[in-house]
Amino acid sequence: MIELKGAAVSAQIKEQVQKALAKRPGPPPKLAIIRVGENPDDLSYEKGARKKLESFGLRSQSFSYPKQISHARFYEAFLQINQDPDVDGILLLLPLPAQIRFPEIAQAIDPKKDVDGISPVNIAKVFAGETDGFAPCTAEAVMEILSHYGVETAGKRAVVVGRSMVVGRPLSMLLLQQNATVTICHTRTRNLELVCRDAELLVAAAGQRKMLDERYVGKDAVVVDVGIHVDQEGKLCGDVDFDRIRDCASMATPVPGGVGSVTTAVLAKHLMRAAGAFEE
Amino acid sequence: MIELKGAAVSAQIKEQVQKALAKRPGPPPKLAIIRVGENPDDLSYEKGARKKLESFGLRSQSFSYPKQISHARFYEAFLQINQDPDVDGILLLLPLPAQIRFPEIAQAIDPKKDVDGISPVNIAKVFAGETDGFAPCTAEAVMEILSHYGVETAGKRAVVVGRSMVVGRPLSMLLLQQNATVTICHTRTRNLELVCRDAELLVAAAGQRKMLDERYVGKDAVVVDVGIHVDQEGKLCGDVDFDRIRDCASMATPVPGGVGSVTTAVLAKHLMRAAGAFEE
Repeated sequence: MIELKGAAVSAQIKEQVQKALAKRPGPPPKLAIIRVGENPDDLSYEKGARKKLESFGLRSQSFSYPKQISHARFYEAFLQINQDPDVDGILLLLPLPAQIRFPEIAQAIDPKKDVDGISPVNIAKVFAGETDGFAPCTAEAVMEILSHYGVETAGKRAVVVGRSMVVGRPLSMLLLQQNATVTICHTRTRNLELVCRDAELLVAAAGQRKMLDERYVGKDAVVVDVGIHVDQEGKLCGDVDFDRIRDCASMATPVPGGVGSVTTAVLAKHLMRAAGAFEE
Repeated sequence: MIELKGAAVSAQIKEQVQKALAKRPGPPPKLAIIRVGENPDDLSYEKGARKKLESFGLRSQSFSYPKQISHARFYEAFLQINQDPDVDGILLLLPLPAQIRFPEIAQAIDPKKDVDGISPVNIAKVFAGETDGFAPCTAEAVMEILSHYGVETAGKRAVVVGRSMVVGRPLSMLLLQQNATVTICHTRTRNLELVCRDAELLVAAAGQRKMLDERYVGKDAVVVDVGIHVDQEGKLCGDVDFDRIRDCASMATPVPGGVGSVTTAVLAKHLMRAAGAFEE
């Protein structure tokens, strides 16, 4: 089984970004990372994203607010960042606390700065298969990995386990746009084993630790694992029991070192596009 | 095989509408139907829709513009209708001529009046599985038929053939929201016969005359036909070769008299919701 490592994909994206940056006068594009509260997962993602952007030669700035901030005050602060001409892209760490009305924020975000695809305009574009919007970075990271390793999707039976708005649904649409025959599975799917085993491309985005093992993987399937969990021994693992699929899968992404490491590279790429720094 | 006739579904929706109308003071809700050019299909749909709305006790008004109208002039006229407080819902007949920039119109339409779900806000809601927006009427007509005839979707293998933004994609999301395991097929799908034959619920929305026959239908499958075409003998027919699936399907919608006849009833229902005349 071939391991589809994220590092090589990230390195390739870094090269694209730096090439485009070199041609571009003025300060590099800037990402605003907006965080409410001090959730450790958010802090860790923020730190990783900032480090990655810096290593790519891009700017970022953190904006953080107390967990109890009112909707009105947060909305006002958000609008200011949204309108700041020095801010090219915005990453809002989710979920927000309950008092903040997320739909109003998502509607207000400038679709052109919405690098993680939360605006209805970008969601609608992803759904419609229009490629000039922004898909959520994680969903697009999966597509980058498949493309990097030359995994053909057209005409293939792709099964996506998970129907979240961050991964499952948008990724299904990206795969559909690449002409895969896409099946979306979830907690209510019957005979999940059978459905998954029939996939030529299996994407695990269920958010359940080591839920998919050799019983779910057909011979020579390509397996992409979007999950990230901590196992009994305190080690990072995914939705897939990686050790148990070695004999059936032809290729699989490891966790860690797979999709996660590409997500922030896609974020950098989106930031470049938001700043108009890419032709593509 | 049981024929899933649309008339009974439409009659039930009519009853719901009239019940709600009776409780409501003032003039009945009004739909604006906006048409550019004189496409015979548009004219025929418009006529059918207006007749149906009238029979339900609802108001409608046609607004038509010459095929050559400029984007600027059409946009201006559109905004006026959009802002008119006497207009509760808007149906824009599509596609528009090439000189009119549809995305700008779709962005401008008031999502609360957008009874056929063309606004990015409503598209995003359908994609996200939020039920307070408007899905395209045809897609929702399919759900109304399934619900009326007690066809359970949760946990079922549903296969949708076709990936248009009017039917295939939104319907896939509505079925997903009802907990079906949804597979989306299209022209690039390999082994379409096999994939379709595995479906417990098969929806034909491919736009190809009599394309699906007994080879595509599994034993006891429920078949819904969204297509509408004229056959060699000048008769209306669907994407399904109805006569040839009688021995395998357990239930199927006829054409004519199936989905099409429910679509305008859903339009009436949406108009009522747009006017705030339903509790649901």
